[in-house]
Amino acid sequence: MRIGTLQTDSGLRTVAVRDGRLVELAADLGQLLAGGREAQQRALDAGRAEHPLDESRLAPAVPNPGKILCVGRNYADHAAETGHAVSEKPEIFLRARTSLLAPLAPVVRPRVSEQLDFEVELAVVIGRGGRYIPAAQALEHVGGYAVFNDFSIRDYQTRNSQWIPGKNFDGSGPLGPFVVTPDEIPDPFDLDLTLKVQTAGGDQETMQSSNTRLMVHRIPDVIAFCSEWTTLEPGDVIATGTPSGVGLGRKPPRWLQPGETVFTTVEGVGTLKNQVLEEAREAS
Amino acid sequence: MRIGTLQTDSGLRTVAVRDGRLVELAADLGQLLAGGREAQQRALDAGRAEHPLDESRLAPAVPNPGKILCVGRNYADHAAETGHAVSEKPEIFLRARTSLLAPLAPVVRPRVSEQLDFEVELAVVIGRGGRYIPAAQALEHVGGYAVFNDFSIRDYQTRNSQWIPGKNFDGSGPLGPFVVTPDEIPDPFDLDLTLKVQTAGGDQETMQSSNTRLMVHRIPDVIAFCSEWTTLEPGDVIATGTPSGVGLGRKPPRWLQPGETVFTTVEGVGTLKNQVLEEAREAS
Repeated sequence: MRIGTLQTDSGLRTVAVRDGRLVELAADLGQLLAGGREAQQRALDAGRAEHPLDESRLAPAVPNPGKILCVGRNYADHAAETGHAVSEKPEIFLRARTSLLAPLAPVVRPRVSEQLDFEVELAVVIGRGGRYIPAAQALEHVGGYAVFNDFSIRDYQTRNSQWIPGKNFDGSGPLGPFVVTPDEIPDPFDLDLTLKVQTAGGDQETMQSSNTRLMVHRIPDVIAFCSEWTTLEPGDVIATGTPSGVGLGRKPPRWLQPGETVFTTVEGVGTLKNQVLEEAREAS
Repeated sequence: MRIGTLQTDSGLRTVAVRDGRLVELAADLGQLLAGGREAQQRALDAGRAEHPLDESRLAPAVPNPGKILCVGRNYADHAAETGHAVSEKPEIFLRARTSLLAPLAPVVRPRVSEQLDFEVELAVVIGRGGRYIPAAQALEHVGGYAVFNDFSIRDYQTRNSQWIPGKNFDGSGPLGPFVVTPDEIPDPFDLDLTLKVQTAGGDQETMQSSNTRLMVHRIPDVIAFCSEWTTLEPGDVIATGTPSGVGLGRKPPRWLQPGETVFTTVEGVGTLKNQVLEEAREAS
């Protein structure tokens, strides 16, 4: 099942895809992910209003997660292109929910920086929560998978030792288009990751191309590690890291330009499409 | 006014202190902080049920902030004791709300580490939100002040480049006891910070003693910097950093032990009291 969030004139609605339409579900998104297939099917059978599948009105698939955990340097080629080794334990940072973005919304290049960069990632969304989750049982806690682009403002990320500012610009993290439940993803350890940039003139270039089998710290180990120190809750998001090809790793660095469009794809999960807009110079 | 959150049998309630009692307010905590003195007085005048001032049932003063921004290395003597320089821009990391703790609740030394350390801090709670807030107007966005202890698990903090795991253990961040509105804090730039540890035997030792005037990046500059990249929302918390004296800075390091009690005080704002408990060895 594909579960997400629709922006309506009267607020956000949890929805699922059925026969090419969006069905409103009378259920909390986190509880739905925690409830598993039967609960999801019951909610869909009791579904209320239907909407055309107009992805332009989708909100971030999980609009208000309790936390957004992100794994840094989780592909060896990406760690290498930025001059770093991989670490024995996962390198974790946090995003705040104000940094989330709708799957098809424009990403803003802020007026304080020109260093807007892209990062295709597979996101794991927690279903059943827990603490001290053993790696062997970790996949039972996965409510689904989504595509994430960890858009980064590199000068704000690397100026200090902690990356938080450059990873938390408003609207820099598109998530979606839907959370795809695990029954539709037979092997999360073998999914192609692709990121293409289309210039204002229409030319497309593939900037990142990899596969989730190349993760250094695999999903069960990341879940086990995080749950050593924090209770994972339904709807929590774990972004599992990006492979090589980012703008920062190129010589010279290649930053996104206003007018370009970024297509971020995870095989079998979906595609995000985000056009780069320039922020007005004056107060927003 | 002192505004906080009471844990009742039927859930959390926003409360204010009046004549030594807690008055339930029919208002959202963030909106109340954003509304300013008149709105707060109206809410108090319309106050509903009263409760005895039993601080043992207080929840974290802001139980569910949109984000918790923390400033690292914001006192020169603390940066020096851990072998670091102060940075030109504030060093920011994030906490998730699962890391918050009630003002008088026990802090758990997790079974995965013995390196539980303390950090007295002044917390700023945002009232009116905003983006691109100029430093000169930043104090207008402060809804109040609270005491924060940024309890840290040092091996989980320093093992990787990013500090997030060691700063995000469940229940490691007591906040409160109340949010004290700015009219009661005439000069936030001159508040004594004190942290005392009482051993199981009853002996007390002052471990940290400093003053907010010694902050490297002062509150208006921290607010201005953070709002360059993230929209600050009512109820967001900014923990402004700790002075020297932490266990990590001592030779040998001095970790908190089960049975000890930590008293964390900011002059005019309040005191947190947290006893150290040992976590059971088996699954929690």
